[in-house]
Amino acid sequence: MIKRNQGDLQDQKVTGYQSVLGVTQTQTVRLPGIRTQSGHEFAHVDIAYQTLGKLSPARDNAILVCHALSGNAHLAGLHPETGRPGWWDYHVGPGKAIDTDKFFVICSNVLGGCNGTTGPASPNPSTGKTYGMSFPSVTIRDMVAVQARLLEHLGIEKLFAVTGGSMGGMQALVWAVERPDQVRVCVPIATCTSHTAMQIAFNEIGRCAILTDPNWNTGNYTDTCRPEHGLAVARMVGHVTYLSEFSMTHKFGRNRQSATEEMFSVESYLHHQGQSFVKRFDPNSYLYITKALDDFDLFAGQPAAEVLSKVHARFLVVSFESDWLYPPAQSRELVRQLKRTSVPVTYINLETEYGHDSFLINNPPFSNLVRHYLDNEYHRE
Amino acid sequence: MIKRNQGDLQDQKVTGYQSVLGVTQTQTVRLPGIRTQSGHEFAHVDIAYQTLGKLSPARDNAILVCHALSGNAHLAGLHPETGRPGWWDYHVGPGKAIDTDKFFVICSNVLGGCNGTTGPASPNPSTGKTYGMSFPSVTIRDMVAVQARLLEHLGIEKLFAVTGGSMGGMQALVWAVERPDQVRVCVPIATCTSHTAMQIAFNEIGRCAILTDPNWNTGNYTDTCRPEHGLAVARMVGHVTYLSEFSMTHKFGRNRQSATEEMFSVESYLHHQGQSFVKRFDPNSYLYITKALDDFDLFAGQPAAEVLSKVHARFLVVSFESDWLYPPAQSRELVRQLKRTSVPVTYINLETEYGHDSFLINNPPFSNLVRHYLDNEYHRE
Repeated sequence: MIKRNQGDLQDQKVTGYQSVLGVTQTQTVRLPGIRTQSGHEFAHVDIAYQTLGKLSPARDNAILVCHALSGNAHLAGLHPETGRPGWWDYHVGPGKAIDTDKFFVICSNVLGGCNGTTGPASPNPSTGKTYGMSFPSVTIRDMVAVQARLLEHLGIEKLFAVTGGSMGGMQALVWAVERPDQVRVCVPIATCTSHTAMQIAFNEIGRCAILTDPNWNTGNYTDTCRPEHGLAVARMVGHVTYLSEFSMTHKFGRNRQSATEEMFSVESYLHHQGQSFVKRFDPNSYLYITKALDDFDLFAGQPAAEVLSKVHARFLVVSFESDWLYPPAQSRELVRQLKRTSVPVTYINLETEYGHDSFLINNPPFSNLVRHYLDNEYHRE
Repeated sequence: MIKRNQGDLQDQKVTGYQSVLGVTQTQTVRLPGIRTQSGHEFAHVDIAYQTLGKLSPARDNAILVCHALSGNAHLAGLHPETGRPGWWDYHVGPGKAIDTDKFFVICSNVLGGCNGTTGPASPNPSTGKTYGMSFPSVTIRDMVAVQARLLEHLGIEKLFAVTGGSMGGMQALVWAVERPDQVRVCVPIATCTSHTAMQIAFNEIGRCAILTDPNWNTGNYTDTCRPEHGLAVARMVGHVTYLSEFSMTHKFGRNRQSATEEMFSVESYLHHQGQSFVKRFDPNSYLYITKALDDFDLFAGQPAAEVLSKVHARFLVVSFESDWLYPPAQSRELVRQLKRTSVPVTYINLETEYGHDSFLINNPPFSNLVRHYLDNEYHRE
C-alpha cells in the first residue's frame, strides 16, 4: 500500500519535495508548422519542451514521454521559478522508471496546450490577436505531428521508446501506428483506442461548466475576467474520476476540516484542486484538448488488424485495477487486438488501489515494471 | 437484458406511455410543524403527498415509499396536468412490486423539496418572502419527522412497510431505527448508512456549479433569472453517476447526432437531462437536499449494534452489482451490521447492468423480488 506522496505532483501542496534532478529547464522553439487533420495550415508552431539525460552517440536512446490532459513539458526536476516538481518526477530521473542516466528523455507540451506550445491562447499571426475559439480543432494525430517536428529539430530519426498515460498513451499509440519505422518500443499506460460514452460524458460536463460560465464570453475572455468558476468545476469533475473510492476513503473518509466543522475535507481538497488548476490552465485549451480526447479513434473505422499490421514496435501495455475512468478492460481489448495481429506485447494490470492517478503517483511496482521492461528492451538485439 | 424503458421516468421523453393506474392526484395538506435537528421551529409544514390503493379496515397494509434526491410525491399513475408518469410507475400499481390492489401506498415530497412540501422556495411566514438560503438546514431525520406528521394525519399508527432507493433508502433506515414500533418491514434499496468521500465529492461538484452560477445570487434568484446553467451541470454530473458504463455504451456508444455530426449522442442526452431538470427543480432545494445526503449518518457516532438493537422491523436489503455510486459493498456492510444484531434480514444483490438507476427503470427481476417479499411478509404471522 502506498502511504505517502499520493496524487499528481502538479496540484499537490508539495512541502519540501526534493528532486534528484535538481532544477531543470524548459525551452521553447519555433519550427515550421503542420497542416492539421481539419485542414488548417500553421505557418509555424512554437513548441515548449524539456530534455533530460544525454543522447547517445548512436542516437538510439531517445524516449519521448507524452503528457496527459493537464500536463506540460515540465516532466521532471524542479521548475526554476516555482520550485514545483515536474509532473512525472516520481518516475523520471537517475535510476527511475525512465532512467535519465541511460536515456535521452524528451517531453513537449501538446499542440492546443497552454504551457508554451501553440494553442488557443497564442496570438493568431494573421490577426495579431489571441486565437481563442478561432483556433482550429486539433486531434491526437496533430499533436503527434508537432512532436515529430521537434524530433527532426533535435536530430532524432528513431525513438527507442514512446510512452505516456491517459491522453499520453493515445499519442504513444498514434506514434506506433503512423510512424512505425520511428518507434522501437511503445508503452501506453491507462489508456484506450477511443473514448466510451462515459468518458465523453465526463468531459462534456467539464466543457459545459466552462461554456456556461458568463466570463467565458464565447472564448474571448481577458486575463482579469476568465471563466475560472467553470474551469474549476471541470477540474473537480476530472479529479474525482482520476481517484478511486478506496483512495478517497483512505485519504479523506468523512473527516471534516478542523477549523470549520461545516465542510468535509474532501470538499476543501476539491476546491483547492480547482483553484490551483485555474491559475495554470487556459479554459479554451481545456475545451480543445478534451475534444481531441473524445474524437480520438485509433482505428478510425478501419479494421484494427489492418491498422496494427503496420506496427513495428514492441509493446508494454499497463493498466490499473482500480482505474474506473480508463478501466483495464480497454487495455485488455487493445492487447487482444495487438496479439491477433502478432505484435509482441507484454500486458500488466497492476493491483494498485489509486485509480487512474496510479501512473502519476509514487508507485514503486509501476516504476520497477517500466524500468525493467525498458532496460531489457534496450539491450535486446 | 432490459431493452426498453431504460432510465428514470421523470426526465425521459416518454412517448405514449400508459399507466394501469390512469390519472392520479397529488394533494397538499398543512400540518403542525416540527423542530428540526438544527433547532428551527416550523409552526406548520405543507406536505404534498399521493396515496394509492385502499387502507384495510385493520389499517395494517400501509406502505410508505420515500423518494430520492430528484423525486417527488407523484409516485405512480399519470400526472393530471403534464400526463407524465410518476417516478416509480414501473413498480407501483395493481400486481406490481408495490401492489396497489393489496396495499395502501403513500408517498410525500420531502422537507426541503420543491414539489409542494415546505422548502427553500416556500414563503417564510415571518417575513412573507421566499426563504431562499434562510431556510434552516434539513436532515434525513427531519424529512422522516415530517412524514410522521402526515401518517398521524392519515390515521396510520403503524406502517406495514417503508421503502425507498438511494436517499429514499436512508429515510427507510431512519424509520426503522427511530420509530421501531411503527415499522413491520424495511426495504432499503441501493443505499448506505453514510456517504463516502466519493459520494460527497460528486454532490459537492454539483453544489459548486450552482453556487458559482452568477444567477444564483446568494440564493435570492428570481423566476426569470435562475442559476439554470449551474443546476443543469449538477444534474449532468448526477446523471452520469446514476448510469453504468455498460448502460451508456449500450445506449449511446460513440454514436453522433444524425443532424449535426459534431455532437455525440451522449452529449445531447446529457444536455436534454440538464434542461429538463431545471424546469422542474429548485436550485436551492438541490443544495439543501444534497447536504442532507452528505451529512446523513445513521449511527451518528454510536456503535452500529447499539443503534440497531432497537429495531423491530424485518429487512429486505437490495443492491445492484453495476451501481458504482452506491456500491453493493455499502449494502453488504449494512447487512453484516443487521445480522450481528440479529435483525432478520434478506439480502439480494441483483446482477442488473444499469447502475444506480436500476431501481428506477423497468426491471422485472427487481420488481418480482420486492413483490414476493412484501407478499410473504404481509401474510406471515
